[in-house]
Amino acid sequence: MSDIVTAVGTPNIALIKYWGKRDEKLILPTNSSVSMTLDEQLNTKTSVLFSNRLKEDRVYINGELQNTRGTEVGERLVCLDILRRIAKDKRHALVVSENSFPTGSGFASSASGLATLVYAASKGLGLRLSGKEMSIVARRGSGSACRSLMGGMVRWRKGVKADGSDSYAEQITKPDHWPELMNVVGILSASKKKFSSRAGMRQTERTSILYRSRMAYVEDAASRLTAALKKRDFQTLGEITMRDSNNMHSVMLDTWPPLFYMNDNSKEVIYKVHELNESEGKIIAAYTFDAGPNPHILTLRRNVNKVTRLLDEVDAVQKVLKLSMGNGPRILDRSESLIDERSLKPFKN
Amino acid sequence: MSDIVTAVGTPNIALIKYWGKRDEKLILPTNSSVSMTLDEQLNTKTSVLFSNRLKEDRVYINGELQNTRGTEVGERLVCLDILRRIAKDKRHALVVSENSFPTGSGFASSASGLATLVYAASKGLGLRLSGKEMSIVARRGSGSACRSLMGGMVRWRKGVKADGSDSYAEQITKPDHWPELMNVVGILSASKKKFSSRAGMRQTERTSILYRSRMAYVEDAASRLTAALKKRDFQTLGEITMRDSNNMHSVMLDTWPPLFYMNDNSKEVIYKVHELNESEGKIIAAYTFDAGPNPHILTLRRNVNKVTRLLDEVDAVQKVLKLSMGNGPRILDRSESLIDERSLKPFKN
Repeated sequence: MSDIVTAVGTPNIALIKYWGKRDEKLILPTNSSVSMTLDEQLNTKTSVLFSNRLKEDRVYINGELQNTRGTEVGERLVCLDILRRIAKDKRHALVVSENSFPTGSGFASSASGLATLVYAASKGLGLRLSGKEMSIVARRGSGSACRSLMGGMVRWRKGVKADGSDSYAEQITKPDHWPELMNVVGILSASKKKFSSRAGMRQTERTSILYRSRMAYVEDAASRLTAALKKRDFQTLGEITMRDSNNMHSVMLDTWPPLFYMNDNSKEVIYKVHELNESEGKIIAAYTFDAGPNPHILTLRRNVNKVTRLLDEVDAVQKVLKLSMGNGPRILDRSESLIDERSLKPFKN
Repeated sequence: MSDIVTAVGTPNIALIKYWGKRDEKLILPTNSSVSMTLDEQLNTKTSVLFSNRLKEDRVYINGELQNTRGTEVGERLVCLDILRRIAKDKRHALVVSENSFPTGSGFASSASGLATLVYAASKGLGLRLSGKEMSIVARRGSGSACRSLMGGMVRWRKGVKADGSDSYAEQITKPDHWPELMNVVGILSASKKKFSSRAGMRQTERTSILYRSRMAYVEDAASRLTAALKKRDFQTLGEITMRDSNNMHSVMLDTWPPLFYMNDNSKEVIYKVHELNESEGKIIAAYTFDAGPNPHILTLRRNVNKVTRLLDEVDAVQKVLKLSMGNGPRILDRSESLIDERSLKPFKN
């Protein structure tokens, strides 16, 4: 009987942003963040096999064997090592992972990828970890990944302990609490410049004059957003979301040298969202931007068409995704395995 | 004998920016600012006549008689009223003003225009005001105008008094202290959006979460910049200048709703300046942006060609101006008068 475990997981979009670490190695954030787990239109599928037949860890992403010294695989190995330590199991792992993301979608595949890996590998090692425990493991690979271990709306508590044991993700509302909430994403034509988020946030912490001021406001914003979510108050949610996105991009610009992730197309969408809300007399659409130019526009299901039309008017928007609330990672049937157990390689497509 | 007085004055470029007022009516700033007065390549020429023959104030700008209720002329009337009160003179004034600025240059003609008006009108009323005194009058018309009343590098002290008597401009270095210092300006193709600075800064004060943090840092930055100017230390001057520009644009973005004055072309120039400085191993060029997308690049005379080449590489740059340090406003010969004394109108061109 095979020990292969296959899981699927998804990215999340932060409404209160994570930008800055209080501990680089343990990946402990300087502030709490809140996100929406997205549905499986964008997903990572991952199969994991722990086996004595393996002489070393092997990680394939989108069909390519990864160099074990690379950053992206490094994050995965950190998580595997932690799980093996918990399971007291020294077997090496074969990991085969496929992202469904459209090229240039600007979605950080690391959140989706690491959450799914941790989910599959925990099961593969026979561990029965809670979402909270798995989120702590995923956090060590890539901070924002910890928020993709569960569905609905999720809060990553910054925690205060030096060992990171109180810095984990927790579900604040279930997926069915507010199923009308959607995230309409405009995928822009590929942009030229891209700064690494990891290096970028380090620069911000070290150099931004305004960063402390962001830190002084953001915990309260996270609490106010959480309260708005619980009450399904889109007005408040929308305003806090947009302002926090602007606030994060402000401290990025205040970094030395400055970091820019939005571009003129992002700005055009921002203007249009403010115009739409003004013409409606209330907030029906709320933009947010991660470390990239693609607009994510939160809205309620009944207003998705208005938001889609808005994005269609922006020349540079190549594609529009209408994403709803996701349920978090889940185990797939054996038949969905990506691993050929005989050759210990990915199945050929 | 004619009482017509004609003067010429110039704009200034702020290295430490003015963005926010502690008193809207008296135009008292929330922070001190520092600027470079520019040479006469860009200038305003203004003739003023006080005469009993006039039944009301009349202001012509670029040949057009201004509506006396308009903002731009309103600023001028405020200054004229103050000067008349000081001079105990109730005669009305005829003002004829011409800006040499290229269309869409993005230079606030108000600084140059108001400084020149106050300079000419003081003389026209027979007043012998100091630069400091004239700067207080010009400030009441438009804040940044007070820095154009003198040449060289100028500091506008924010002051603390409620009546504004200690909020004035003072020369911190003479024009000949550092004549090598230049400002190379890239004029971009006209941009679409423009927010009024007056309304914009009010919004920032009221809504920006990060604004207080800017206020907490900027007085010290103004002092450090002043010290760097005195020592002719371009490294320090350059870094403080770039960071303060980024910092101001950060609080603009953090305003609700957000304000954007830079665009992707501005950003391209920022990248290129950082690349140039990196390749030189030191700061030889320092960008700064006012409430608009046009880059102003401070550099020393020997590096002007490198900076010009950099700007030439940016497609959207339509024109490059190489501006040196200016001497401040001065009185022109009678023969340069713009006023036809018989008709009490501007001379026909």
